[in-house]
Amino acid sequence: MTTTTDKPLRNGVDTAALFATIDAVKGDPEIAKFRFRATNSWVSGTHNQSTIYGFYGAEQEMLHQATWTFDADHPAVLTGQDNGPTPAEYLLHALAACLVSGLANIAAARNVTLTEVTATVEGDIDLLGILGLSDEVRNGFEQIRVAFTVRGDDADKLKEVVEQSRQRSAVFDVITNGVPVSIEVDAG
Amino acid sequence: MTTTTDKPLRNGVDTAALFATIDAVKGDPEIAKFRFRATNSWVSGTHNQSTIYGFYGAEQEMLHQATWTFDADHPAVLTGQDNGPTPAEYLLHALAACLVSGLANIAAARNVTLTEVTATVEGDIDLLGILGLSDEVRNGFEQIRVAFTVRGDDADKLKEVVEQSRQRSAVFDVITNGVPVSIEVDAG
Repeated sequence: MTTTTDKPLRNGVDTAALFATIDAVKGDPEIAKFRFRATNSWVSGTHNQSTIYGFYGAEQEMLHQATWTFDADHPAVLTGQDNGPTPAEYLLHALAACLVSGLANIAAARNVTLTEVTATVEGDIDLLGILGLSDEVRNGFEQIRVAFTVRGDDADKLKEVVEQSRQRSAVFDVITNGVPVSIEVDAG
Repeated sequence: MTTTTDKPLRNGVDTAALFATIDAVKGDPEIAKFRFRATNSWVSGTHNQSTIYGFYGAEQEMLHQATWTFDADHPAVLTGQDNGPTPAEYLLHALAACLVSGLANIAAARNVTLTEVTATVEGDIDLLGILGLSDEVRNGFEQIRVAFTVRGDDADKLKEVVEQSRQRSAVFDVITNGVPVSIEVDAG
């Protein structure tokens, strides 16, 4: 779905490849169906590790260029060993990364130059929920805030690019609108 | 909120500390209010990097024992350089890790022994949404499936522990029910 190009990259985005991908999908919508995966293995206590390497897309099984592993744990204050971020922090990272990746693509497609983008994502959670101490407090974040700093072209163009990124972010959609999750268990 | 104990750990969980934490929160619900963060910086194209180190909890600013950074990118087939997993894959990892961390705590609290836990999380996404090629396809995952393998005590106890983990998972709640996300932009 990518092509080579002699044109210079904008914001590090190969816009020719980006538009070629969109054209390819228009010609065959099946190649747009992707399936992503992560496999997590328990280590000890609240410490566990996920592996990410294979996914399905463009009508075939594909592999990332590397196999990545990520440790998750609780900090000591939450009775863990702090071997990695909490799962909830990884969720905030996923949201930040999705908005920033999309922003870079959208800016390039609109000929908007970026010089700096940072996004700080913060989520408020009251542990009375997951500790089972209140029926009125939810388990997850009660609210999430994203603070963007974007530098480059004029402010209005940059704000429009952020807004379009919000409107086309996969993770923003999942986190704000929710997704059905089914669970199967092989126990014994 | 943690205490030392001479009792052996179950599943690597310090259950005495876990119950002490719950008692401490009962005595002062303010200490249960946490605020987690991730800060993401754009690198180039769809490549960006999040940093996780500080959080608020137990009525104070706290630091993890290390500063962690995580690269996110798109694979070549999605016009990226594959410098890290996609943001959507990090979201799946967050869900898997949250369910497994909670499961280990719950099993320990119930005196259920674990010998092995793995959770494979898979999400279906149709990129017609984020590419702006269909108004009927959502941007995010259409559905997510979790497949658990749990070994240890008898199957019924293990299944109950998985079910309780689902009922008390912060990330499962966020992903299935959604959370309001606000965005502020400093552009220029």
